[in-house]
Amino acid sequence: MKVDGKNIRPIFLDKDGKTIKIIDQRKLPHEFIITDLKTVDDAITAIKDMYVRGAPLIGVTSAYAVYLAAKNAPSELIELDYMVKECDRIKAARPTAVNLVWAVDRVLEKVRERSSLDSIVEITLKEAGIIAEEEAENCRKIGEHGLDLIGHISNEKKGQTVNVLTHCNAGWLACIEYGTATAPIYTAFDSGIDIHVWVDETRPLNQGARLTAWELGKHGIRHTVIADNTGGHLMQHGMVDIVIVGTDRTTHTGDVANKIGTYLKALAARDNHIPFYVALPSSTFDWKLKNGINEIPIEKRDPDEIMYVQGKYNDKTVEVLVPPIDSPAANYAFDVTPSRLVTGFITERGICGASEKEIRKLFPEK
Amino acid sequence: MKVDGKNIRPIFLDKDGKTIKIIDQRKLPHEFIITDLKTVDDAITAIKDMYVRGAPLIGVTSAYAVYLAAKNAPSELIELDYMVKECDRIKAARPTAVNLVWAVDRVLEKVRERSSLDSIVEITLKEAGIIAEEEAENCRKIGEHGLDLIGHISNEKKGQTVNVLTHCNAGWLACIEYGTATAPIYTAFDSGIDIHVWVDETRPLNQGARLTAWELGKHGIRHTVIADNTGGHLMQHGMVDIVIVGTDRTTHTGDVANKIGTYLKALAARDNHIPFYVALPSSTFDWKLKNGINEIPIEKRDPDEIMYVQGKYNDKTVEVLVPPIDSPAANYAFDVTPSRLVTGFITERGICGASEKEIRKLFPEK
Repeated sequence: MKVDGKNIRPIFLDKDGKTIKIIDQRKLPHEFIITDLKTVDDAITAIKDMYVRGAPLIGVTSAYAVYLAAKNAPSELIELDYMVKECDRIKAARPTAVNLVWAVDRVLEKVRERSSLDSIVEITLKEAGIIAEEEAENCRKIGEHGLDLIGHISNEKKGQTVNVLTHCNAGWLACIEYGTATAPIYTAFDSGIDIHVWVDETRPLNQGARLTAWELGKHGIRHTVIADNTGGHLMQHGMVDIVIVGTDRTTHTGDVANKIGTYLKALAARDNHIPFYVALPSSTFDWKLKNGINEIPIEKRDPDEIMYVQGKYNDKTVEVLVPPIDSPAANYAFDVTPSRLVTGFITERGICGASEKEIRKLFPEK
Repeated sequence: MKVDGKNIRPIFLDKDGKTIKIIDQRKLPHEFIITDLKTVDDAITAIKDMYVRGAPLIGVTSAYAVYLAAKNAPSELIELDYMVKECDRIKAARPTAVNLVWAVDRVLEKVRERSSLDSIVEITLKEAGIIAEEEAENCRKIGEHGLDLIGHISNEKKGQTVNVLTHCNAGWLACIEYGTATAPIYTAFDSGIDIHVWVDETRPLNQGARLTAWELGKHGIRHTVIADNTGGHLMQHGMVDIVIVGTDRTTHTGDVANKIGTYLKALAARDNHIPFYVALPSSTFDWKLKNGINEIPIEKRDPDEIMYVQGKYNDKTVEVLVPPIDSPAANYAFDVTPSRLVTGFITERGICGASEKEIRKLFPEK
């Protein structure tokens, strides 16, 4: 997508055909920094410390991390055992993201399948690139399918502004192009629909205020940043037409793990008869787990992410301490929205209801 | 209540018997500042810019503001017309707080009833003091009644920790002593019950993280600061036994206006069968309005409260910009939780259910 008129992706292969570059998203929107990933440890740090975040981008980054493992192997004759161990390290970087494991395993599978003459470095680089292109294409298709939903609301409102509420950043910064939750928004905007987005700031890391607002602003889409507490009030007063969020992992029974607070918005949407959609590429479905609330492990992150808020002060990006220094804080990163609160899923294959039966109908091969 | 071993209230008459002093709550917890209210304009600023906040404290401050009007009257012969006009100015300081109007009218009534020999300055000062004492006593009683609820949970859990979730600051800083939502917590703690409090940070102004955490810490009560997004997840996993919040205005039909985000917690409590209580002195009941969602005016505050977050940096209290500077923000300060989501009210007279019938049973004179 475009930043100041220039096309860019959140992760890309440099012109030299070897170096992996990422947008370091930690200091956005006030500083725009591109950085290199040179080693597996660089990639793990980038995933763990959220230089990159969002399910699809974590998947692509971890795929490129497998390439970095091969590239930096201790001997030219790369052993499968070494690759498996490096892949295990990568897979442990963040527990909730199902795409991480999925992408690493997919690249590793290509390594296992190779003929003896193939270069593991080339195989892994190629496969990571294919995954990136697939994610971009999936998001484009999610946008196409989501456009139907938003177009329908726009028609019902006779062209009046369609108000979308979104939580966290499931935008192109979290993906490769278009985003997941934002794909229908970009596609609707580009096709001339009058659209406005309520952007949940998304504490503790403020991905909504920092990233989604930045993305939408760069694209010229009308939006308003709100405290996470606000959505219920807006829904009570008819100021939200549809909620669209992303997901880090969704069970094939329809339970949705997403950024902490998503569940509260789903409850409010249900209470006010507002459609609540989850946009995801099918790689985010977990085909094993059945009960999201009991079975999806929820990452507990550093309490300092609650204690300190990052922002711009005197032209620098700094962190300020909010609570008393001696107050404990707890930082649960995700919650699970049960399928009963989800109106439907917007996937690259189309839209389906939030039940095992409906999901399997769209993905009969699973 | 105690701060570093010294008894203090958030508003008090100085030893000289003339000067009104307040804790300027804006820079807490990192700076503890006491400031004078000398004029009506000082008091209006203190209310509007939230040097003082919380329904009971706003009531007491506005009562003292009527005294300040009298004290600073342009002539010794104070005209009723002048007092009425000053009172109208005070009442306009914040639209949602019903206590503000209630307290001003009560002091003004004493002025109207005076005999010609009475000093308006003395009458208003005396009445404001009486209101302050009544609020303190009300909160003490709210604590006593709330103790029954918490004690019951503690017994059911066989003495295991009782986990309370609260939103915003309805603590002694918002009242005069004990607080409203915190009164049962302080009383339970003081009577030896094992209690732990989940403190919603309460964006945008972080009254939970800044004030409730500070209060509880000073009293030695175990607590954990969480992002506002977290409560639903905690409730899903049995980590909350009871929710207790305050209110800025509650209709006599049981609809609760409180800090934005309260409604979302009430939805989550209902979804997880967790009792949701609202603690309030009866002065916070609105005996006229019937439908809270449609009738209670919701204050829209400065968007900069969303854009900038206050905290400590390099030993100074500063504000940092979070979203892109050119992103719009909206700042709705309150929402309304419909009575159907409220388990009950904890008042100075006792506990009642959230319906007009139950409320009137407790206040038959209304």
